[in-house]
Amino acid sequence: MLSRSNETQVRALIDQWKQAVIARDIERIVSHYADDIISFDAVGALQFKGKAAYRAHWEACMQVCPGAGIFEFEQLRVVAGEELAFAHWLAHCGGTDAQGVTKACWMRVTVAYQCRDGQWQVVHEHWSAPFDMLTGTTRFDLQP
Amino acid sequence: MLSRSNETQVRALIDQWKQAVIARDIERIVSHYADDIISFDAVGALQFKGKAAYRAHWEACMQVCPGAGIFEFEQLRVVAGEELAFAHWLAHCGGTDAQGVTKACWMRVTVAYQCRDGQWQVVHEHWSAPFDMLTGTTRFDLQP
Repeated sequence: MLSRSNETQVRALIDQWKQAVIARDIERIVSHYADDIISFDAVGALQFKGKAAYRAHWEACMQVCPGAGIFEFEQLRVVAGEELAFAHWLAHCGGTDAQGVTKACWMRVTVAYQCRDGQWQVVHEHWSAPFDMLTGTTRFDLQP
Repeated sequence: MLSRSNETQVRALIDQWKQAVIARDIERIVSHYADDIISFDAVGALQFKGKAAYRAHWEACMQVCPGAGIFEFEQLRVVAGEELAFAHWLAHCGGTDAQGVTKACWMRVTVAYQCRDGQWQVVHEHWSAPFDMLTGTTRFDLQP
């Protein structure tokens, strides 16, 4: 059976996680992740295996990226069962660089949750942007 | 409770779906999809909403792509509950062009399943390749 109350819990966790990213609080960001998370991030590597590896990637990204000036979610869908849940949405991500130029793009996000010992944890995350099949260039221009 | 028997069912479906792609059999490929699938494919658009839209995208891709000479899955993880399941893996995709040059790259795949009326259906799919944060170029060179 699908569970509305679990869906509500997962939606709250996604909002808390989003606020942690906006606050650039790595401790709070990674507190949502299971120790054995396998993450497919949009940049850096094919995958990050385990919370420690993914935390190090977050730290590297925070060094490179400007402040999370734009970090908005749209078209969020959450489906929750008794012990598993998944969510996907579109994320508008960007910021303003040192020259005052704002750059932003739309990304796709998929997250899988598992409830372990009564606690929902992110066991898998997948972020990406589509690419152009002919040129191999990332399509930062696409709009929802 | 997680379900080993559901995991076994989902693994069999993934294998059947893979064989359908290798056979370039669009009817069999899309037979795995729920009518309300929302797909984040690696190319073409941010998302495809519904089986009909995603089917049209598959048809367009089959026109552009050479035969699925290389379509191998690695590091498959399947987690299945009573009514939801998810899977993720790395896919080696490529083929040989008209000049006899073989081109292949590694992609990341995430799929979410829901059991409806006793039938497991794909309700969400996410394919991607990472990009280089500085150049915006897709990283077709990454190896597992």
